[in-house]
This record gives sequence, structure tokens and C-alpha cells, in this order.
Amino acid sequence: MLSTRAHTTKLCSPKQAAQLSRALAPLLSASTLGKPVGVRLAFVPAVTQHHHHNQSHGGARAFSTTSVTRMRDFFPAKETENIRETLPAWPHHGYTEEEMLAVVPAHRKPETWGDYFAWKFMRFCRWGMDFTTGMRSEQKVDKKNPTTATHSIKPLTESQWMIRFLFLESIAGVPGMVAGMLRHLHSLRRLKRDNGWIETLLEESYNERMHLLTFMKMCEPGWFMKLMILGAQGVYFNGLMVSYLISPKITHRFVGYLEEEAVHTYTMAIKQIDDGHLPKWSSPDFVVPDIAVKYWHMPEGKRTMRDLIMYIRADEACHRGVNHTLGNLDQKEDPNPFVSDYKGGRAPPRPALKGEGYERAEVL
Amino acid sequence: MLSTRAHTTKLCSPKQAAQLSRALAPLLSASTLGKPVGVRLAFVPAVTQHHHHNQSHGGARAFSTTSVTRMRDFFPAKETENIRETLPAWPHHGYTEEEMLAVVPAHRKPETWGDYFAWKFMRFCRWGMDFTTGMRSEQKVDKKNPTTATHSIKPLTESQWMIRFLFLESIAGVPGMVAGMLRHLHSLRRLKRDNGWIETLLEESYNERMHLLTFMKMCEPGWFMKLMILGAQGVYFNGLMVSYLISPKITHRFVGYLEEEAVHTYTMAIKQIDDGHLPKWSSPDFVVPDIAVKYWHMPEGKRTMRDLIMYIRADEACHRGVNHTLGNLDQKEDPNPFVSDYKGGRAPPRPALKGEGYERAEVL
Ligand SMILES: [Fe+2]
Ligand SMILES: [Fe+2]
Ligand SMILES: [Fe+2]
Ligand SMILES: [Fe+2]
Repeated sequence: MLSTRAHTTKLCSPKQAAQLSRALAPLLSASTLGKPVGVRLAFVPAVTQHHHHNQSHGGARAFSTTSVTRMRDFFPAKETENIRETLPAWPHHGYTEEEMLAVVPAHRKPETWGDYFAWKFMRFCRWGMDFTTGMRSEQKVDKKNPTTATHSIKPLTESQWMIRFLFLESIAGVPGMVAGMLRHLHSLRRLKRDNGWIETLLEESYNERMHLLTFMKMCEPGWFMKLMILGAQGVYFNGLMVSYLISPKITHRFVGYLEEEAVHTYTMAIKQIDDGHLPKWSSPDFVVPDIAVKYWHMPEGKRTMRDLIMYIRADEACHRGVNHTLGNLDQKEDPNPFVSDYKGGRAPPRPALKGEGYERAEVL
Repeated sequence: MLSTRAHTTKLCSPKQAAQLSRALAPLLSASTLGKPVGVRLAFVPAVTQHHHHNQSHGGARAFSTTSVTRMRDFFPAKETENIRETLPAWPHHGYTEEEMLAVVPAHRKPETWGDYFAWKFMRFCRWGMDFTTGMRSEQKVDKKNPTTATHSIKPLTESQWMIRFLFLESIAGVPGMVAGMLRHLHSLRRLKRDNGWIETLLEESYNERMHLLTFMKMCEPGWFMKLMILGAQGVYFNGLMVSYLISPKITHRFVGYLEEEAVHTYTMAIKQIDDGHLPKWSSPDFVVPDIAVKYWHMPEGKRTMRDLIMYIRADEACHRGVNHTLGNLDQKEDPNPFVSDYKGGRAPPRPALKGEGYERAEVL
């Protein structure tokens, strides 16, 4: 009764999928940081030293777990006898070209102890991510301005980018859901109005899930990376829940910093596409998945990987502005400025263009 | 900076609020079912025997914890220097008069063991609720058709109804959020498409929260009832989470049965208003809270308590049809019929009019 749609073009080969697994393998030995030991990690030097010319050593030593047959369209849109398609119940509000171009990497300077803690913890997570994915120091930007500098000596490869995108998006959908759920339950049990925060937070988590599903349409990770994603969600979900119960303010700030990283990551990717370093994504064979064309209403002729990343980056800039702003508000009493109706015809705030977020007095 | 809006008319007096607390007091002695003992429960016989003429014994013996000063508009819409109001980010889709009139109490006969379990467990919860709120046997309907029969010898009082509404709505917002959250996390960590279920579930929980906030605008419960609500959420949230992880199918069936109760409850209330038993709600002084007028777009001249309950009942009928239908589907593979686009211009299913839910073959 269920029929499967035609496969969309896959961006990465089975070999690349295996590389995704391989590159994340060192995570297993988090306790042996820097000095990987044991059979499972024998290939690590190959990854960290030769990753930029990985064509040369082929799949012989690869930690390959993804066979060709697994590269199916493994979550086809469901079509049944009667149902044509299932629409995204949360339509994207869309961006103008100008809005997308106006997005820039930004950084909000930590002011309070809470900010400082959120920032340093984010730096630590980022360091762990870079280390475990075998990012080389020439591929990094100026350490002093990690979310605003965009110059690096060496570009990442397409598959390195894919690892980052997939892993980051798989955890990015968690905080909005945790925050939305906790505020919903709080409203129910304290019999208090929520003032419009919940839906913005849930919509954020939905938007992040759409990012993930879009990338998944381009590349199926191997079982190893899937396991990593599973484990990361367990840690991240519980950590965020506790953190949100203790201090929603600091948690929103932390998410704000996470989104600074996201904007930075996608800005770097766009720059490297523009500099001609990512030929697979610039190839005329490249096709943006259907799910993305529909979700962002991508116009015909504007459906390259670069276009796609422009949309996603604008989304991340939105989350960045929203979370930094929410982190500035009174969590219990203040209304959500982003869904509020302003007096005197004043337009609502535009979070995508406000990297550091709005101060409380600006929006209330 | 924050100003408080004018108070809306309160439906229940402080005395009635105290009665809410009083009526729920026996919950404390769940272990001494039937034979209440101890100081705290000394007034229980008064409630169960004299509740229908509670005017006669005044407040002298009342377990009063709610003073007059607490009857404020305790979650005023926030208005700031710049913000006029914060809109509900999830607008209500509205009902036609015909749709609301077409709603009838219904019952889906249990077919599988899972159905049977869900139904019997629902009966048990309902019995507990009736017992602890001191519902008299003359106030109940035919035991054999508990969610469809509407004849009872004695009506409930307005405050008895309010207790039921408040308590039920405070837990009704939980299952949609739990199910939506778990499906969201599942989609993220299994890297699988969700097929449109999440938003319907989250929207259901939002809608239930609006029911609760609406009733809260009419009547503030005392600390005792607040404590009950707190405890109930703890038990209910965790129970549902475990239950949804074990069997989402049975959980949707259970929620379907819960919604049968809700439709039945509101149908009974409408009937008793029509029969003239609830004068406070038929009084011309009665004002539907602003929050409800806005949320359901209630037209001028159609803003009585009866009108309000008609809207809420239609919502419950929707949830009933949706959850019974979802309980009939393959949880992992099937698309959500209620947000799907059908072939050949076929209209999407209308859950409010399908008390038993749609069978799988009907909608896929
Ligand atoms: Fe994202
Ligand atoms: Fe993001
Ligand atoms: Fe409800
Ligand atoms: Fe309901």
C-alpha cells in the first residue's frame, strides 16, 4: 500500500559515508584524549593527517560499515492509496534575499557570571567537537574570535562539513523542545499564562529538525555516527533539562552561543564554496532535496547548495537573536517580543539581524 | 512598566473557591477510601451529603484558604511600554455552528487487549475522580454507558462542574506534549521523518492549555487544589512518558477514551444549562473571559457560558477522533491523515465528527 518515491540524488558515496563513521570514531576513546590506543582507533592518524587527500588511500583501511545497499532514500515521503503528501504543519515564514544577505557572524560579549559560564562551556563543547572530528589547526580560524573570524589556511572537505552539519543539527533540535515542554508543564501546573514563549521555542526545534532531515537526504551516516547521535541526545537532553530547570536564563544564553557557532559554521561553508574549495557542491549535478525546496519555498534556478545554506544560516541567525534576547528577559513575567503586537504600529523585532540579541528595555 | 488590565468578572466567590479545595480534600486520604478519618477530612460528610444545598451552611465550617484579596486577575495579559499584547502563536482554526452542533457523545468499543486495558484504566481513573470530588450516585449517568448516556437524577452545581473542568484540563495538556516531544526526539536520534504527527500533538496540548487558562480566568482554586494539580501532573507526566515509550498505540487509545469523557462531561454541562440547573452561568451578569473571546473568535452576542462550552466540546471531540484514529495507525510508518493532502481533491478527515476515530484503511 505504501509506495516509495524515486530516489533523490545522493551527495556522498558509500565511501564518504564510511568516512563519516571513521572520523567520529575517536569519540569512543574520550578518556584517552590525544593518544588514541587500541584496534578501533588504528586509523585515526590517517584521518587527522591525510584527510584532505583522502582520495589517495582509498577504502582499503576504511572502517567501512555502510554498504551500497544501505544508501537508499531511507525516509521517503509517505504516499498511500489516498494520501498525496503530508504537509509540514509549521510552514516556514520565508526570508527575503536582503535578510539572508544581511546575516553576519556575531558575538555577544559575556557580561554576567552566567554568561561567562555559558560561553566557556560552549567553547569546551566546540573544542571537543573539533578534536573528535579530526579538525586540523590549519582549518581553524583565529582563536581569539572563534565565532566571527572567517579566515583559515585550509578548507574543510565536503564530508568534513557534512559530519559537522549532521551532528550539530541532530542536537540543535533538542533545546527548543526541552524549553517549550518545561514552560508548557509549568504553565499547566502553576496555572499561569506563558506569554507566548512556548510556540517560538517549539517552532525553533521543528526548524532544526528540518535542517537535519534535509542533510539526511543528502548523506546517510554509518552505524557508528548513528550511535554517536543516539548517545549525544541522551546526554544533551538530560543535561539541558536539568540546566533549564536550574537557570532558564543561562540556558538561553548557552543556546545563543551555540547558534553563534552555527552561523559561523555556515558562513565558513559559504565562503569556501565561493572560494571554489567544495567542487561537489558547486557541480551542476548537485540537486537540493525536495524536502528543502518545499520547506523554504526555494525558487527555481536558486537551488544550489549555497542557496540552501543561505536559508539555513538565516534560520540560525534567527535562533541566535531569539535566544540571546530571551536570555535578557524576566523568564516568568515578560512576554515574548517576537510574537507580540507593538503599539503605534511599531514593527516587531527582527532577531536574524541582531546577533547579540535585544536588550530587555529595547523590546518591552 | 507592567500594567495590569481591568479585572474580568469572576464567576465563583471566595466561598466557592474554598469549596473547590474542600471537595478535593479526600484525595489526601486515598489510602482510606470510603472511610475518611482524621481532622482534615471532618467536613467530608458535609460535602457529600449537603453539597447540593451548600448555601445553607455558609462558610462557618469551610476549609477556607482563599481570602478575598487572592481573587485577583492573577495572570493578567502583559502590556509593557511598547507591547500592546502577545498573540496566541497558534491561532484556532475555528468551527462552524453546524460542526459544533454535530458533536455527540460517543464510545469506541474496545477490540484488542490494549484497547480493553486502556478503557478499564480510564474507568478506574474516572471512578477515582468521581469519588474524590464527592459526586453523588444520583448525579451519575447509567453505569453501562458512562460516556454516552446523559440522564442523571440530580444536576451538579456550578462549583462541582468547575472542579471537574479545572482538574481535567490541567492534566489534559500533558499527553499531547509528551507524545509530541517523544516523537520529536525519536525523529532526531533515529534520523527519521515523522510524517506530520508532532505538530498535531503539540497543537492539541496547546489547545488544552487554553481551556485551562480560560477556566482559570473564571475561578481561582485554593492552595489545596493547586497542590493536587501539582501532584497529579507529576504522576501523570511520568506515567504517560513510560506508557508512550512502551506502547504509543495503547496510549493514543487511552487519550481517546479520556476525550470521550471530556465530550461527555461538557455535553452534560450543556444539558444542565439548558434545563435551567446552572443559573449562575445563565445569568446576564456572566461574562466570558477575554482570552476565550480572542482565542475562539467568539462573535458578539454569542458569548455565554453555553457558547464557550460548545467551542470547548468541539475541541475535545476533535482530540477524541484524532487520538482514536492515531491509535489505529502504524506508529512508525503511517502519515498523519489530519495534515495530509489527499488525492483527487478528497477532503481531509474531520475528526470532530468521528467519535470512534477512522479505521486505518479509511484514511490511508
Ligand atoms: Fe540548524
Ligand atoms: Fe540553530
Ligand atoms: Fe480540554
Ligand atoms: Fe481534550
